[in-house]
Amino acid sequence: MSQPPSPPPKPLEGYAHYAHYIISSPGPFVAHVEINRPAKLNAFTRDMWLELRAAFRQLSADPDVRAVVLSGAGERAFTAGLDVKAASQGGSALLPGPGGRGVDGARAATMLRREVYEFQDCISAVERCEKPVICILHGISIGLAIDLSSCADVRLCAADTRMAVKEVDIGMAADIGTLSRLPKAVGSSSWVKEVCLSARAFGADEALKVGFVSQVLESKAAAVEAGLKLANLIASKSPVAVQGTKELLNHARDHSVDESLRYTAIWNSAMLQSDDFSSALLSGIQKTKPRFEKL
Amino acid sequence: MSQPPSPPPKPLEGYAHYAHYIISSPGPFVAHVEINRPAKLNAFTRDMWLELRAAFRQLSADPDVRAVVLSGAGERAFTAGLDVKAASQGGSALLPGPGGRGVDGARAATMLRREVYEFQDCISAVERCEKPVICILHGISIGLAIDLSSCADVRLCAADTRMAVKEVDIGMAADIGTLSRLPKAVGSSSWVKEVCLSARAFGADEALKVGFVSQVLESKAAAVEAGLKLANLIASKSPVAVQGTKELLNHARDHSVDESLRYTAIWNSAMLQSDDFSSALLSGIQKTKPRFEKL
Amino acid sequence: MSQPPSPPPKPLEGYAHYAHYIISSPGPFVAHVEINRPAKLNAFTRDMWLELRAAFRQLSADPDVRAVVLSGAGERAFTAGLDVKAASQGGSALLPGPGGRGVDGARAATMLRREVYEFQDCISAVERCEKPVICILHGISIGLAIDLSSCADVRLCAADTRMAVKEVDIGMAADIGTLSRLPKAVGSSSWVKEVCLSARAFGADEALKVGFVSQVLESKAAAVEAGLKLANLIASKSPVAVQGTKELLNHARDHSVDESLRYTAIWNSAMLQSDDFSSALLSGIQKTKPRFEKL
Amino acid sequence: MSQPPSPPPKPLEGYAHYAHYIISSPGPFVAHVEINRPAKLNAFTRDMWLELRAAFRQLSADPDVRAVVLSGAGERAFTAGLDVKAASQGGSALLPGPGGRGVDGARAATMLRREVYEFQDCISAVERCEKPVICILHGISIGLAIDLSSCADVRLCAADTRMAVKEVDIGMAADIGTLSRLPKAVGSSSWVKEVCLSARAFGADEALKVGFVSQVLESKAAAVEAGLKLANLIASKSPVAVQGTKELLNHARDHSVDESLRYTAIWNSAMLQSDDFSSALLSGIQKTKPRFEKL
Amino acid sequence: MSQPPSPPPKPLEGYAHYAHYIISSPGPFVAHVEINRPAKLNAFTRDMWLELRAAFRQLSADPDVRAVVLSGAGERAFTAGLDVKAASQGGSALLPGPGGRGVDGARAATMLRREVYEFQDCISAVERCEKPVICILHGISIGLAIDLSSCADVRLCAADTRMAVKEVDIGMAADIGTLSRLPKAVGSSSWVKEVCLSARAFGADEALKVGFVSQVLESKAAAVEAGLKLANLIASKSPVAVQGTKELLNHARDHSVDESLRYTAIWNSAMLQSDDFSSALLSGIQKTKPRFEKL
Amino acid sequence: MSQPPSPPPKPLEGYAHYAHYIISSPGPFVAHVEINRPAKLNAFTRDMWLELRAAFRQLSADPDVRAVVLSGAGERAFTAGLDVKAASQGGSALLPGPGGRGVDGARAATMLRREVYEFQDCISAVERCEKPVICILHGISIGLAIDLSSCADVRLCAADTRMAVKEVDIGMAADIGTLSRLPKAVGSSSWVKEVCLSARAFGADEALKVGFVSQVLESKAAAVEAGLKLANLIASKSPVAVQGTKELLNHARDHSVDESLRYTAIWNSAMLQSDDFSSALLSGIQKTKPRFEKL
Repeated sequence: MSQPPSPPPKPLEGYAHYAHYIISSPGPFVAHVEINRPAKLNAFTRDMWLELRAAFRQLSADPDVRAVVLSGAGERAFTAGLDVKAASQGGSALLPGPGGRGVDGARAATMLRREVYEFQDCISAVERCEKPVICILHGISIGLAIDLSSCADVRLCAADTRMAVKEVDIGMAADIGTLSRLPKAVGSSSWVKEVCLSARAFGADEALKVGFVSQVLESKAAAVEAGLKLANLIASKSPVAVQGTKELLNHARDHSVDESLRYTAIWNSAMLQSDDFSSALLSGIQKTKPRFEKL
Repeated sequence: MSQPPSPPPKPLEGYAHYAHYIISSPGPFVAHVEINRPAKLNAFTRDMWLELRAAFRQLSADPDVRAVVLSGAGERAFTAGLDVKAASQGGSALLPGPGGRGVDGARAATMLRREVYEFQDCISAVERCEKPVICILHGISIGLAIDLSSCADVRLCAADTRMAVKEVDIGMAADIGTLSRLPKAVGSSSWVKEVCLSARAFGADEALKVGFVSQVLESKAAAVEAGLKLANLIASKSPVAVQGTKELLNHARDHSVDESLRYTAIWNSAMLQSDDFSSALLSGIQKTKPRFEKL
Repeated sequence: MSQPPSPPPKPLEGYAHYAHYIISSPGPFVAHVEINRPAKLNAFTRDMWLELRAAFRQLSADPDVRAVVLSGAGERAFTAGLDVKAASQGGSALLPGPGGRGVDGARAATMLRREVYEFQDCISAVERCEKPVICILHGISIGLAIDLSSCADVRLCAADTRMAVKEVDIGMAADIGTLSRLPKAVGSSSWVKEVCLSARAFGADEALKVGFVSQVLESKAAAVEAGLKLANLIASKSPVAVQGTKELLNHARDHSVDESLRYTAIWNSAMLQSDDFSSALLSGIQKTKPRFEKL
Repeated sequence: MSQPPSPPPKPLEGYAHYAHYIISSPGPFVAHVEINRPAKLNAFTRDMWLELRAAFRQLSADPDVRAVVLSGAGERAFTAGLDVKAASQGGSALLPGPGGRGVDGARAATMLRREVYEFQDCISAVERCEKPVICILHGISIGLAIDLSSCADVRLCAADTRMAVKEVDIGMAADIGTLSRLPKAVGSSSWVKEVCLSARAFGADEALKVGFVSQVLESKAAAVEAGLKLANLIASKSPVAVQGTKELLNHARDHSVDESLRYTAIWNSAMLQSDDFSSALLSGIQKTKPRFEKL
Repeated sequence: MSQPPSPPPKPLEGYAHYAHYIISSPGPFVAHVEINRPAKLNAFTRDMWLELRAAFRQLSADPDVRAVVLSGAGERAFTAGLDVKAASQGGSALLPGPGGRGVDGARAATMLRREVYEFQDCISAVERCEKPVICILHGISIGLAIDLSSCADVRLCAADTRMAVKEVDIGMAADIGTLSRLPKAVGSSSWVKEVCLSARAFGADEALKVGFVSQVLESKAAAVEAGLKLANLIASKSPVAVQGTKELLNHARDHSVDESLRYTAIWNSAMLQSDDFSSALLSGIQKTKPRFEKL
Repeated sequence: MSQPPSPPPKPLEGYAHYAHYIISSPGPFVAHVEINRPAKLNAFTRDMWLELRAAFRQLSADPDVRAVVLSGAGERAFTAGLDVKAASQGGSALLPGPGGRGVDGARAATMLRREVYEFQDCISAVERCEKPVICILHGISIGLAIDLSSCADVRLCAADTRMAVKEVDIGMAADIGTLSRLPKAVGSSSWVKEVCLSARAFGADEALKVGFVSQVLESKAAAVEAGLKLANLIASKSPVAVQGTKELLNHARDHSVDESLRYTAIWNSAMLQSDDFSSALLSGIQKTKPRFEKL
C-alpha cells in the first residue's frame, strides 16, 4: 500500500500571493515550497522563474524561516524543465533561433545574453537564499530540474526519480547552471561528462553513488518527509551557526583554502559575538531545547 | 573463450600519414585513435607525443569528426607510459639527471622547463580537442597512461586494467598532468594522495568506486565497444550543443560558479543562434533522426 | 578478544620536550605523533595547538623524517575537539561571547580575528608540513578532529570511529578549516552540506563511501598498523619525488589546471636535477632497496 | 564674469518620474543625469541611492541611450557624500553604532552586512550600466563622491573641485567602493594610501597628475560641456563597438591577460556578426555620418 | 636637416627566410626586427602575423639573442594596423560581417572564435618571447600597433608618433590584446576608457604622461638608437637574471602578491644555481666585462 | 647650511632589545623605526631581516602604536641592500652558487626555496603590520631597499635619493618582493620593465613622476619630518577606520572588484559596531580632538 498524501499544509504567512508556488509552514521556522503546475509536469514558464526569485529573496530575509524544503506538486514530476512550447510562443529570446538569418547577429546576441543572465539570476536565487534549501527530486526531473536542484544545499530523491541533463537533445548546451555547478557537486568528472554529453537518463541509485543526492527514499512522500525532518533538525539549531555554515561552504567551493580561511576568520570575528553560544551550551547542560533570537 | 578481435577498421580519411597511431572511422562522425606500438606495450617515445598533438589538433578542427575514442593497440596495455630506455638514450632533458654536476644548474633548469612545457602541451592536446574524447583503459595503464587519460572527457576501462601513478618509483613527481587533473576528476583527496604518494597499483573496481572511470567492462573488446557506442550516440547529437557542453564543463572546472555562469551566457549568446534547435525539435516530433550541419 | 596494545614506541630523537604529544620512530624515516591527553578524550587546549604547530614545523624540516602518522593516544578518541571548558575558563577569545554587550564590537572583532588566525595557522601546520601526514581516526572524532584530519594527506579510520562536524551544536560555524577543506576532500556537496548543517554523526562506512577516508580497518590498532605500513612504504621512496608530489597536489587543489601545469614545470625544472632517479632505476635493475640522500 | 548657466535641458523621455535626478537629453543618444539636491550639496539619502540604481538600470537597457553624463546640480558640489544627519535619524544600519551594546553582535552584523550589500549594489549600477558613463566632478566632491565617480568610465573635473576620501574622519573605512576601485583607477599606490589613510583633501591638478581624472576644465560649465562633447562623440560610434569596449575593459581589470583574451574572443565571436562594420566602412568612404541600429 | 638613415644592418644568422621582416644584428646578442612593408604603412596581412609568431618563437629560443628591438621600416609608420582591404578580399573571418545573414550564427561564431584565437596567439608571441622586447613606436601607430606594442616589455616613441585605439571607428571592439593589456600598462583607467571608447588620436607627450611609453625621442632615428642602446645594455647582463626578471614581472601582473612571491621562490630555487653570480661579482671587482654562458 | 640633526628620539617602550633598529616614539601612538647600521650603509645581514620581522610583528599588535615611520640611520643611505659580503661568508643559501656542481640540484633547490621563503616572510612583515607604515627613502636606496619600501603603505623620499633595482647586476632576478609589488605600486609597466631589466639608477623626480613615491622633500631631515607629520595625522584618526582602510586596500590590490566589495562588507559588518563613529562626530561638532580606545 502506498504512503498516504500529507495533510493540507498550513500556509506560511506573507506568501499567499505567489501564483505558481504553494508555500507552507510544516513546522516552526521551516518553509515548504512546492512548484505548483502539476498538470504540465511542473514545467517552467518565464513567469514562474521570475516568481521563484521573488519567493526565495523573501525567504532569504524572513526571520521566521530557518530552513526551506523545495519539491514539486503532484506525483509525476519534480519538474520536466523549461516549458519549451510556452517559450516558443512567448517569443522567448532564450531558445535557439534560426541562425540569426535576417537579423543582426550582434544585436540578437545582446538580447540573448541579457535574457540568459536574467534566467540564471532567478534560478541562482535558491543558492543565494541565506537559509539552507533541501531539494526533493522525484519522478521526472530533467533539464531545468538539474540546474535548479544544483542550487540547493542538500538533495534527496525518491527511488522513482528519472533524471537527465537533457539540453543537448534540443540542440543547446545547458546554460542555467548545470554545467557550472554539477561538476562541483559530485565526485566523478567522467560521469558528469558522460551524462551531460549524451543526455542519457540516470536514476536514483546512480545519483546516490556519484554523490549528487545524499539519500534515496522509497517514494516521493517518504523523500518529502525525510526532507522535512532534516529541515526541522536544522531549524532547531542556532541560525547564526547554520547561516554562517551555508555561506562559508558556498564561499569555499569557489576559492582556494587560504582565501577561504581568511574569509572565515573575518566572518566569525562578527558572528562569534552572539548569544547563541551560551544558549546552546546552557541547554546542553540542562537538557532543554535552546531558544535562539531571530535572524 | 576470449572475445574475437574487432574487424580491421575503416581508415579515417586524411590521417594515414601518422606513424604511431591507427586512426579509423568506425561510424559516421566518429574517430577511433589507437596507440600503435603494442610490442613495446605502447610505451611513448618523443616522436609519439609530438604526433599525438598533431593528430588531436587535426581532429579538433575536422568537421567530419564529432566524437573520438582513444585506446591502445593490442591486448596487453593501454600504455606502459614513457619509454624510459628510449628517453635515456635519446638524451631527453626530461629524465631526472645526475644532480646537475658539471653543468650550470640554471641553464639545465631552463632546458628542462622548456621540455616539460612541450611534453605537457602535447598531452594537453587531448583536452583541448573541441570534440569529446572517450578513453578506453585496458591492461597495463601506468605512468603517462594516467596523465593521458586524465585529459579525456570520459574514461571507461576493462576489468583487467592495472593502473598506477608510477612516477615516484622512478624518483620524480609526475609532471605531465596527473597531479594537476586527477584530484579534480575524482571525489576523494585521501585516495588521490594515497595512490600518488605510494605509487601502488589499483584496479578497475577501485577506479570505478572513486569515480576515475564511469564504467567497467569485462574485457578490452567490450570496453572499446561500449566506448564506440557512446561515441556514436554523442555523434548523433547537435555538434553545437556537444562541443559547447565540453567547453563549458572544462571552463567550469577551473573557475568559480559566478565566472562560469557569465562565460556560459556569453558563449550561448552566439551558440543559440543555430539551426540545430529547430532540427532537433522537428525530428523529435517526426520521430526521425535529425541532421546537423558540420562544425 | 581485543587487539593487544603496541609495544612502547622508540622515541624520535629531538622531540622529547613536547608536553602534549608522544613522538616516536616506528621505522626508518617514519615519525608517529600521538595526541597525548587520553583522560580528556584528547581534547585540545590552547597550549596543545600551539605545540602542534611547533612539532609539525620541526618534522617538516627534519631530514630524518619522510612520512608522519598522526593518531590519538588511548582507545576512546582521536580527539573530542576543542576543550570548551578549558577555553571558557582560560578566557579564550575564540568562543562565542555574550553579544558584545559592554564592549566595543569592532575591538572585540579584532581580538577574535587575531585569535582565529592564530588557531587556524597552528592546525594548518599539518598541511604545510613538507612530509606526507597519514591521519588515523578512531573512536570519538568530532569538531576539531575534522578540522585537523582534513589537513592530513591520507585519512584511514577504525570501524568504531564516530565523526561529526559538531560546531553548529555550540552555536557557531566551524572556523578552523573544516568548512574550507572538507568540500574539496570528498565527492558529494550534498553530503557535506547535510553533515555540516545538521551536526549529525556519521560512521566509518559513510566516511569511506563519500571518500573522506580511503580505508576502514577493524580496530584502532589495525588502523594504526595500516597507517604505519603505508608510511613505511612512502618513506622507502625518493623524498624528492614524494615531497614534490605532496606540494604539487596541494597546489593543484587551489589552482586551475593551467596554473598547476605551469607551476609543476617550474618545480620540476629544479627537482629533476637529482640523483634519486638513477638510484631508483639502478635498484630496480639490481632488485635492491634504493638509498636516497636526506632531504 | 561667471559662466552663464546652461539652457533648461530637454527631458529624456521615460525618466520624468525620478524624484532626485534631472535626466535630460542634450543630444541624440546622449543622456545627462544630474543629482538634484543642490540645497544640501547633493548629499545622498537612502531614497536617492535606491533611485540611482533604478535610473541606471533603465539607462543600461534603453536603446535610445548610447552615452551618459553624470554631474551634480548647482554650482557648489558634485556631492558632499552621504547625508549623515538623515542617515542617523532614519536609523540606518550603515552608520557605525555604539559598539553593539545591548544587542547581539552577530545579529547586528547581519543587518549591517545586508545594508552595505544593498548600498554597494545601488552605486555599482553605474559601473554595470552597459553604456559608457562620463562623470563630471566639481566643487565639493567628498566621501560617496569618490565611491560614485570611481564607478564611472571617464572622469573629468572642474578646476575648483575639492576631493577627499573622507570616511576615516567619521571613524570608518570606506565601504561603498572607493577602496575597491580607486587603487585600480590610478597609478600610484603610495598616493592612494596617503589620501585614504589621512582623509586629506586634494584638488584637480593632483587628481590629473595621478590619473584619477583625465581632463581638468576651468569651470563646472566647461567640464560639463567637455563631458557632453565626449558623450556625443561616443554616441556617434557603433554601439556594438562601444558597449563591447566598456564590457571588455571592465572584465580586463579583474582578470589575468589570458582570461581576458579568451573572454574577448568569445564575446567578439558573436559581436563581429554585425552590420555596424560595413556601415562604418561605407560612411568612411562616402564621408557621411554612419547610421547604426539601436542596441 | 633630417637625421640620415642608419647604415644597412648586418643580418642575423638564421632569419633570412622571413618575407615580411628584416631581422638584423646591430650588436652582440641583440636582434632588431623591422616590419617591412613600408609602402603600405606596414599594415598587416594574415601572412605577416603568422610569420611574426614564427620569428619570435625562434628568437625566444635562440641562445645568440638576449634582447630584441622591434620597429617599422620606413619613416611614415610603425604600423597602420590591420590591412582591412586585404582582409576583406582574403575572406578573413575576422572582419565584422553582414549580420550573419544566410549562415548559421553558431557556426559563423565558431569560425570567428578560432580565427581570433589564432590572431591573438600570433601577436602574443612577442610577450611569450623569453628575451626582452623593446618596441619603437613612430609615425602612424594605430589599431594593431597598440595591440602589438602592448606585448612588448619596454615602449619608446618618436615625438611625431600618432597613436589611436582605432577599432571602434570600424564598428568593433579591439580583440587582439589592446583591451586586455593596455589597462595594466598605464596608470589611469579614465584615460584608457577615454581613448578606447572615442578612438581619438593621442601623441607622444600624452603617451609619456600616462606611462604608456617610458621615453620620447626627437625622431624615429633617435628612438631606434635609444632602443638599441637599451638593448645592448640589457644584453650585457646575465641572461639568467634578465630572462627571469621578464618572466617574473609578467607573472606578477596576472597574480596576487602572495602567488607571485611563491612562484618567484620556486623559480629562483633553480635559477640561483648559476655561474652568472660569481661571474658578475668577479667582473665587478676586476672592472672587466663579465662573460655569461649562452641561454 | 645643512639641516641640523633631529634631537635624540624618545625610546618606544618595549623595543629596547632590538640590536639593529632604533625604535623611538616621536609622538603619541607613533613609532619611528631606524635601520641602524650606518657605517655599512645600512646593508642587511641575516640577523637584521629576522629582527625586522620580530619588530614589525610586535608593532602590529601593539595598542600603543597607530602609525610607523621607517627610515635609515645616518645621512648616506636608506639601505644599500643585502650585505653581499656577509652573505657569502655566512654561507647563505640565498646567493647564486656555482651551478650546483658537486651537489644534488634538487636538494640545493630545496634549501634555497626554504631560505627565500624565510627572507620573503621577514620583509613582508612590513606589509602585514596592521598599522600603516610610511617609508622614507634617502641617499643610497638600492636592491633590498626597493623590496622593503614596496611593502610600506606610503613612500616619501629626499631629493638626493638614488634608487635602483640592482639585482640583475649580480646575476639574479630580484626575489624578495620587488618584482611582485613594484608593478602594482606604479602606473607604467614600460618604466618598471626598463628599470628592472637594466638595473639602471633613477632619482627622486623620476620616482615621483611614475608614482613610486608620493612626495619628494629637499633633504633626508625634511623627508623624515614630513613622514612623522603624516604619521601623527594618521595616528590622530580612529584606529578602527585606519587599520580597516589599510587591510581593505591591500586586499583590493590582489582581488577583483567584486571580491573586494564582498570582503569589505563582511569586514565592516563587525567594524561599524564601534564607538569611534560617535566620538568622531561629537568631536567634529565640539571642535575637540576625538579620543579613541586602543586597538
